[in-house]
Amino acid sequence: MPRVVRGSTWSARLGGLAMAACLFGALPALALDGIVEKKVFEMPSYTTVGGGTIKNVRIGWESYGKLNEAKDNVILITHFFSGNSHAAGKYKAEDAAPGYWDSIIGPGKPLDTDKYFIISSDTLVNLSPKDPTVVTTGPASINPDTGKPYGMSFPIVTIKDFVNVQKALVDSLGIKSLQAVMGGSMGSLQAFEWAADHPDMVKRVIAAIGGPEADPFLIGWLNLWAAPIKLDPNWNNGDYYGKAEPKAGLTEALKLVTLHARHWKWADAAFGRKWAEEGKDPKAAMGNQYAIEAWLDKAASGRAAVSDANHFLYLVKANQTFVTGNGASLEDGLAKIKAPVLLIPSADDLVFPPDRNMRPLKDRLEKQGNAVEYTESITSTLGHLDGVANIAKAGETIAQFLAK
Amino acid sequence: MPRVVRGSTWSARLGGLAMAACLFGALPALALDGIVEKKVFEMPSYTTVGGGTIKNVRIGWESYGKLNEAKDNVILITHFFSGNSHAAGKYKAEDAAPGYWDSIIGPGKPLDTDKYFIISSDTLVNLSPKDPTVVTTGPASINPDTGKPYGMSFPIVTIKDFVNVQKALVDSLGIKSLQAVMGGSMGSLQAFEWAADHPDMVKRVIAAIGGPEADPFLIGWLNLWAAPIKLDPNWNNGDYYGKAEPKAGLTEALKLVTLHARHWKWADAAFGRKWAEEGKDPKAAMGNQYAIEAWLDKAASGRAAVSDANHFLYLVKANQTFVTGNGASLEDGLAKIKAPVLLIPSADDLVFPPDRNMRPLKDRLEKQGNAVEYTESITSTLGHLDGVANIAKAGETIAQFLAK
Repeated sequence: MPRVVRGSTWSARLGGLAMAACLFGALPALALDGIVEKKVFEMPSYTTVGGGTIKNVRIGWESYGKLNEAKDNVILITHFFSGNSHAAGKYKAEDAAPGYWDSIIGPGKPLDTDKYFIISSDTLVNLSPKDPTVVTTGPASINPDTGKPYGMSFPIVTIKDFVNVQKALVDSLGIKSLQAVMGGSMGSLQAFEWAADHPDMVKRVIAAIGGPEADPFLIGWLNLWAAPIKLDPNWNNGDYYGKAEPKAGLTEALKLVTLHARHWKWADAAFGRKWAEEGKDPKAAMGNQYAIEAWLDKAASGRAAVSDANHFLYLVKANQTFVTGNGASLEDGLAKIKAPVLLIPSADDLVFPPDRNMRPLKDRLEKQGNAVEYTESITSTLGHLDGVANIAKAGETIAQFLAK
Repeated sequence: MPRVVRGSTWSARLGGLAMAACLFGALPALALDGIVEKKVFEMPSYTTVGGGTIKNVRIGWESYGKLNEAKDNVILITHFFSGNSHAAGKYKAEDAAPGYWDSIIGPGKPLDTDKYFIISSDTLVNLSPKDPTVVTTGPASINPDTGKPYGMSFPIVTIKDFVNVQKALVDSLGIKSLQAVMGGSMGSLQAFEWAADHPDMVKRVIAAIGGPEADPFLIGWLNLWAAPIKLDPNWNNGDYYGKAEPKAGLTEALKLVTLHARHWKWADAAFGRKWAEEGKDPKAAMGNQYAIEAWLDKAASGRAAVSDANHFLYLVKANQTFVTGNGASLEDGLAKIKAPVLLIPSADDLVFPPDRNMRPLKDRLEKQGNAVEYTESITSTLGHLDGVANIAKAGETIAQFLAK
């Protein structure tokens, strides 16, 4: 029987902080849009769509706002490839930044916490199991049957498996309907899957910078993202736990994700052709770099420190194999969706180019009778990443869509 | 003193073929647009822009058409990153394909060999020193001072160095003016550099799918292209000659080049979401692939067999450091260009997006008084690669530009 427990480490740590905040008079301001807590949902056993068994499934989740008595004011947030359940607020007042969509989640914001109970959950095989704020189950988890990490023996999981576990979490809270499922990028894949799998439960879909399937070009790119990990001799076919880890390969993989998710407009504005170090002309030595190269190394290296290489490979597989409805035909999957859909692409998205993904999806959904809204208002200079950093530009549209 | 010699292996082999073709009556048809011969240009020593010395420089080149007496009917073709001097014709009648721009080079074609003497040359550090039709000098070449391959001790070279060696080749033929320098991608960088360095010699520039500098986003991408090579333990800091070579890393690097140079339209049309092998569902095993993945592996593996990993790294550096004129300022470099310029981008180019490269270049050149023509007529489904595969769509424009 699935059950919801609080992450003991986090609730203890955050409880102390909340008390401290209270003593210093800061809590009232933070109570609404501030301090959040990581909770943990557990399932003794989960059987994957492919028939694999995962015991002791643990998934982190957060919530913002209050569940009403009818339990019908719920919005579910599903996260992107390198993201996690921390969509809004801060764990402690001094956190450098709040959750990734804090700009639209909070009291009076488009996802209004005075009105909605917003749930955000970590996925299976989340990229960053070493991040202390992430709770996930994947290749780096201990297989209770062996007492050792699964490594590449972990069952293959799909976006539908992510949704199935979220469904169990939502069920465990007694929630029978969702005002919306909203996600960006890989989160949008989950939102489409939710709407296809549970059409009577999902009242609205809000999907940013994503698509209804992994298109063939993206399947190729995902292969390339994964390649550096397998080239790193420390990867060792996934058997590296307790040994030297494939940090170099994982860093290069994350550099690919990082650059692919951005745009030349960002590169021009942030770096130009600046050198990484004054006096070190890139023409003078093979090792001398441009600023953008050094930045990529540093940004990806930081992310690699909390990420797991095998989890990366499992995420790549989950994304490559995605077709809404998890069947052979996209048409069949989309036909199951009843909900009105709001599509929010970035015009400059290089990962899910709108001309290949959300624009034809709009036509397909309209053709089958769905109510569809479409806005590229988030487009700025970041490419794909506009869907995270600039989501507030679609705030008004989101609020109106939820109010309908 | 530079001198032009014939590649002995090739001239012997091709001489025999030409004779065979003659015996079977095939030669007349091939004489105009058919059998071509690789020639070799040699320099006893070349000093790079950065001050390095390269002894025994050898560079392959081909020509199509006849040099007139005034030696003023010359067009120079400069090649792309993974290309070489084989721009037109076949070495032997049974070759599977002719040179890469054969569709526009030949008698009566836009680059009319009845009229023009067309020279196409290999660059320094050409990607494919193991291709028997390529003659180049780079890290895989023997350093005469040590009797061993240079490896990473080879001097850093720039696009300007490529141009300097081509200039020596052209000088050695007594040619004092060029009707045009034409190149695609990295070939366009050389064309811009030629026009800036030798403004009184270059009468026209024809530049496809390129730009006047490596923009910061491309600098980042080039870093990512190179990364898999350095991750391969066989790379060994470039010291792998006579040992196991970094084939796996080079293959992944070439997969990145291959996919980046294409487009989702191509991926949709060529593969869709097809599996690599019937009965091997990608959802069923981590090793089961989609068709596009298997194709990328195969295509890149084939290219890796004739390529050199260190040459790849030197090409990346040459491209990253490129600014027309080889100075600090693009404005200064462009100001040196006097020639009319024909720009031929692909609208779908992901390597040199026209909105960042050829479109603003058009405005800049016009502002400084150059005659500029601009056409995106080559755009089809291949992205960057449209500039190679679909150049004939700009054939009429090219012919008219040359006739002006």
